[in-house]
Amino acid sequence: MEEDTGALPRKEDFSRWYNEILWRAEIMDVRYPVKGLYVWYPHGFAVRKRAYGILRDLMDREHEETMFPLLIPETEFMKEATHIKGFEDEVYWVTHGGKNELDVPLALRPTSETAIYPMYSLWIRSHTDLPLKLYQIVNTFRYETKHTRPLIRLREITSFKEAHTVHATREEAAAQVEVALGLYREFYDSLRVPVIVSRRPDWDKFPGADYTIAVDTIMPDGKTLQIGTVHMLGDHFSRTYEITYEDADGEQQYAYQTCYGISERSIAAIISVHGDDKGLVLPPEVAPIQVVIVPIIVGKRRDEVLSAAAALEEELKEAGFVVRLDDRDMRPGAKYYHWEMRGVPLRIEIGPRDIDANTVVAVTRDGQKTKLDRRGVVEGVFSVLAGFREGIWATARQAMADRITVAATLEETAEAVKNGVAVVHWCGSQECAEKIETAVDASILGSDIRSDLITVSDGPCVACGDRGTSTLVARTY
Amino acid sequence: MEEDTGALPRKEDFSRWYNEILWRAEIMDVRYPVKGLYVWYPHGFAVRKRAYGILRDLMDREHEETMFPLLIPETEFMKEATHIKGFEDEVYWVTHGGKNELDVPLALRPTSETAIYPMYSLWIRSHTDLPLKLYQIVNTFRYETKHTRPLIRLREITSFKEAHTVHATREEAAAQVEVALGLYREFYDSLRVPVIVSRRPDWDKFPGADYTIAVDTIMPDGKTLQIGTVHMLGDHFSRTYEITYEDADGEQQYAYQTCYGISERSIAAIISVHGDDKGLVLPPEVAPIQVVIVPIIVGKRRDEVLSAAAALEEELKEAGFVVRLDDRDMRPGAKYYHWEMRGVPLRIEIGPRDIDANTVVAVTRDGQKTKLDRRGVVEGVFSVLAGFREGIWATARQAMADRITVAATLEETAEAVKNGVAVVHWCGSQECAEKIETAVDASILGSDIRSDLITVSDGPCVACGDRGTSTLVARTY
Repeated sequence: MEEDTGALPRKEDFSRWYNEILWRAEIMDVRYPVKGLYVWYPHGFAVRKRAYGILRDLMDREHEETMFPLLIPETEFMKEATHIKGFEDEVYWVTHGGKNELDVPLALRPTSETAIYPMYSLWIRSHTDLPLKLYQIVNTFRYETKHTRPLIRLREITSFKEAHTVHATREEAAAQVEVALGLYREFYDSLRVPVIVSRRPDWDKFPGADYTIAVDTIMPDGKTLQIGTVHMLGDHFSRTYEITYEDADGEQQYAYQTCYGISERSIAAIISVHGDDKGLVLPPEVAPIQVVIVPIIVGKRRDEVLSAAAALEEELKEAGFVVRLDDRDMRPGAKYYHWEMRGVPLRIEIGPRDIDANTVVAVTRDGQKTKLDRRGVVEGVFSVLAGFREGIWATARQAMADRITVAATLEETAEAVKNGVAVVHWCGSQECAEKIETAVDASILGSDIRSDLITVSDGPCVACGDRGTSTLVARTY
Repeated sequence: MEEDTGALPRKEDFSRWYNEILWRAEIMDVRYPVKGLYVWYPHGFAVRKRAYGILRDLMDREHEETMFPLLIPETEFMKEATHIKGFEDEVYWVTHGGKNELDVPLALRPTSETAIYPMYSLWIRSHTDLPLKLYQIVNTFRYETKHTRPLIRLREITSFKEAHTVHATREEAAAQVEVALGLYREFYDSLRVPVIVSRRPDWDKFPGADYTIAVDTIMPDGKTLQIGTVHMLGDHFSRTYEITYEDADGEQQYAYQTCYGISERSIAAIISVHGDDKGLVLPPEVAPIQVVIVPIIVGKRRDEVLSAAAALEEELKEAGFVVRLDDRDMRPGAKYYHWEMRGVPLRIEIGPRDIDANTVVAVTRDGQKTKLDRRGVVEGVFSVLAGFREGIWATARQAMADRITVAATLEETAEAVKNGVAVVHWCGSQECAEKIETAVDASILGSDIRSDLITVSDGPCVACGDRGTSTLVARTY
């Protein structure tokens, strides 16, 4: 809406950079008059729409999409003791309709187990109803008392993708956890966001879960951001909500469940991992505009340039690219600034000299300049964008690798977590975890690490010297 | 989830038919433990997704999609007196976060004017920022005390598409009202749902609007269902929320606004207008499955039939149809019942005799049976579906025409509204409106009628005999 031509803070100064890029690149407006609630600008929403389109396609492979109500009656919500304990301080309560006090207060879902599982109990009768795999993309709410931050720590999570599956056996549920992790990896691969997968320590698992495996990325300030979680629920909820099925022998059995979620933190990750000092850098898959054409207009040949630019636009559109011809009456430099800030992957400049030479100039958002033959321009653009995609992937992976340090002592760990993630050996005891966390002012993130950037091993616990296993320690969002 | 093979009530018995088809065709589950809140089954959600995909494409032509928070602080919500008066009995209030009472109660949006317009006030500075045309598809809430009904009268409207536009002049805003009506007509045309457009009487307009033009369809029981509204807001809200712009002469001016919405009543209309005694009838555009292939398996030639069916599935998929091969081990009749209930537009039967004759049998959901040449099957299916689409359109338009009656007296009006909509002359006074409404036990729906099924004229008011204009009277949902 307002145009601004000021400079973005350097990305090194990450917290300020992040706050400023959100409005300069028109992702979110933070001026909504309630703490922790934000407004999606159309450009930000268009990125979100594309990212969730990718996620939906992945989920649709083996889930069905559905939608459950936002409001959960207190009576259902309170049934599962461990679960409610994990959320009771964070739940918003609707207590009045019009001027009437409600008989039963209604919770705004912080997550939907307690809305969905009473229905699963009605739906599931027989082993032939299993497995059941549903997901929904909905708004969820957390009354966050900590410092809120757009896309990262919100009171309304506007885009929570949550999946809930039911299986006949514990083994099948455990296998589904791995399937879900595979889908999440594929999702982040396609966003070119590198991740580390690890199992959360017991005290940090989802309330009511047997275990939680999480997907994290490392932010430019070295803190980790949890951008996906997969929970093995075992038969914990099925016993509370009576989700049973008749097995092949006619016996009633409790079902086993999993649930897993991704929120708009995925958008925060795209912004933070790829962005630079000039603004957003968007992978072509999620860019609302993939190619912007900037005509270089020189006095007399204005009409000729504009019509060449329009013909180019037409040709690229037909080839399936999302293209914008920027023929506004502004100098090219201001247009470059504008589209770089918004992360457009490729800019094509076309001026009189290009027309004469039958070429165009292609500049990727990461600064690679290529002269393309005008005749084979579609193939040229495909190839330049493919190169760009691999380029930002390599850059992001290198940045992550640079922030991972193997540490053998508490001193090395303390040093390592200033820069990013420390990989230490830990014996698994809560006592040592507390020692480590206090000594290095960071958290045990998880064990059972899966990342091709980290080699895991056994070794002496960094706190007690007993046998330990590779574990991530980090400052977290 | 559960399969059921019982019969649907006859559609004549509309209220029972509607309630039953919702679960038999797997649209919604009404057993969620809060009144007025329902669960979308995957099949219902898939219809919703396709219908809203069409709506989105229409809106994207000249609007941008965005998303504003659900929660509106009481302080903003209470600013606009007329508006709040229209909603105060229907608003859900969040009063607590965790165990803390909130300083300012938060309303669950019943509609988003009071969430969006404070931001518009920040965004709009100059005439070059106008027009601004945004929309969002969100959940909204009404504390309905009347009888609730799935998709029709809800406490959580899960799929409210609301657009909010801002213009420099009253004329431009009024023109936008017409643009919006055009988009809504196009939307319902593509769903093959016939509509009547009319201007609501003053006492029935949107709280805070200058005038409201509504889109209605007629349900099988003769009651009208409002399935879209377009509101001319004038400068009413812009004066409250200080939405001003600097015009070309440097003067500050109040902006003019419109807003317009469509909810999941659009899905209720698809179900009710097209459905029949056997179940749903879905236009191909919104059908989650467009073609179901049922192999007719006869003993020895089982493998041959199944492989012919699979080849047919492949060919139709490649041509772009959404196809399901139903090779379950059930008798064909049970499969027909299953897919007819769910509204699949086209069933193709293929058995040994068809293979021998190099044909397939195509049966549309409205019962038209055609033998198609196997070689040209793709063209055949296109043409049969096109015919089906026109067929359900003609049927729906005829059904609407049959329910519209011109009435010259109160007696005729009373008779007409039993069957559907009466078209009467009305002078425009509230006094006569009350007389008419009391006498015929129905409501004045609107004037300024636009429908190619109704010829409008001037004539003596059916209540007082003064000069009146054609007006719709109906029992309404």
